Amino acid sequence: MFEVLAFATPNSVKVPIALEEMGLDYKLVPVNLRQGEQKTEAFRALNSNAKVPVLIDRSSKLAEGDVVISESAAILVYLAEKTGQFLPKDGAHRGKVFEQLFFHASGLSPAFLQAFLVTMQSSPQPEAKARALAEVDRVLGVLEHGLKHHRYVAGDAYSIADIAHFGWMWRHQAIGASLDKFPSVAHWYDDISARPAVVTAIAKTQALVQ
Amino acid sequence: MFEVLAFATPNSVKVPIALEEMGLDYKLVPVNLRQGEQKTEAFRALNSNAKVPVLIDRSSKLAEGDVVISESAAILVYLAEKTGQFLPKDGAHRGKVFEQLFFHASGLSPAFLQAFLVTMQSSPQPEAKARALAEVDRVLGVLEHGLKHHRYVAGDAYSIADIAHFGWMWRHQAIGASLDKFPSVAHWYDDISARPAVVTAIAKTQALVQ
Repeated sequence: MFEVLAFATPNSVKVPIALEEMGLDYKLVPVNLRQGEQKTEAFRALNSNAKVPVLIDRSSKLAEGDVVISESAAILVYLAEKTGQFLPKDGAHRGKVFEQLFFHASGLSPAFLQAFLVTMQSSPQPEAKARALAEVDRVLGVLEHGLKHHRYVAGDAYSIADIAHFGWMWRHQAIGASLDKFPSVAHWYDDISARPAVVTAIAKTQALVQ
Repeated sequence: MFEVLAFATPNSVKVPIALEEMGLDYKLVPVNLRQGEQKTEAFRALNSNAKVPVLIDRSSKLAEGDVVISESAAILVYLAEKTGQFLPKDGAHRGKVFEQLFFHASGLSPAFLQAFLVTMQSSPQPEAKARALAEVDRVLGVLEHGLKHHRYVAGDAYSIADIAHFGWMWRHQAIGASLDKFPSVAHWYDDISARPAVVTAIAKTQALVQ
């Protein structure tokens, strides 16, 4: 059984999507960010970086006991390697999945986060907002380039890299980004959104704020 | 034989460090960022994100031909899996290496980059600089927490996660960060800096700007 400490956030939603896609049993444990629960001592003992999501694998047979992992993409790699799904065992495609996972972590995710932070301000500076959205468009252009030639972000097969990118893309409207200029990204987004595992995971993740 | 398209940057230096540590033959190919060479059509054909480093593995026996990978951490994973070095094959330690690689990509690296960008401005806003350095201190605090209990960032063994963090840490003085408040990080930094492979890789990387 897996426990996922999470909230209704772009990084959190990636984990239940992966667990649903892989057909694994799990329990979502809400960490209410609005009440600062990620900064409690109990939570920091699990992740000193004070961020959701965190995965606890109680089924681990390791001498070290339960496996506790933070960083959404590291959790995706852990689950993919545990189940042998959505991450090729070797070859060029495996390299491309990691390339996209790290492009997500260091490129797309910080760009979307920055745009989100600017948008959330009560009176955002127009210049700061334009700069943030320009970087969002730049990274969407990189995705568009790849998706013009392949159905999925790391090639012709669905992978954990699609799940990672989808997490933040799920909030693109909230930050004022538009996919109109990126037809291949828009098509990919509709495709992923319609997957039953994604629909179920989003519903369960949104229920965490109720 | 490996070719590494690189410049004297924090992300570039990680790759020659890994190649030196692994005892692999490689050739550094300079991409002069000051002259915008990363934005040429030829370079974008290798990495549409227009960033160094890029690894080309011409020894690949894959039907797809040469392996071309961007994103420094994805290159580290590729090399570690190819050689079986500095990344445990399974277990909790493997999960921790990925956790640190993604904490580097999404946490430490953007924090250092932002501080670098603010510091580079001709007349940086004091507030923006203070905010950037506060986030640098926060992520260094997360590292300190881990390094208090373990010699290396992902546990008791040297791994590609140390190489990833070291890349940006190498420039900590240039962004005005101090390790005085983080004694375990300072000790780890001195330890890694003294490794012969690291000394050699830094010299070769710095020679790219000559």
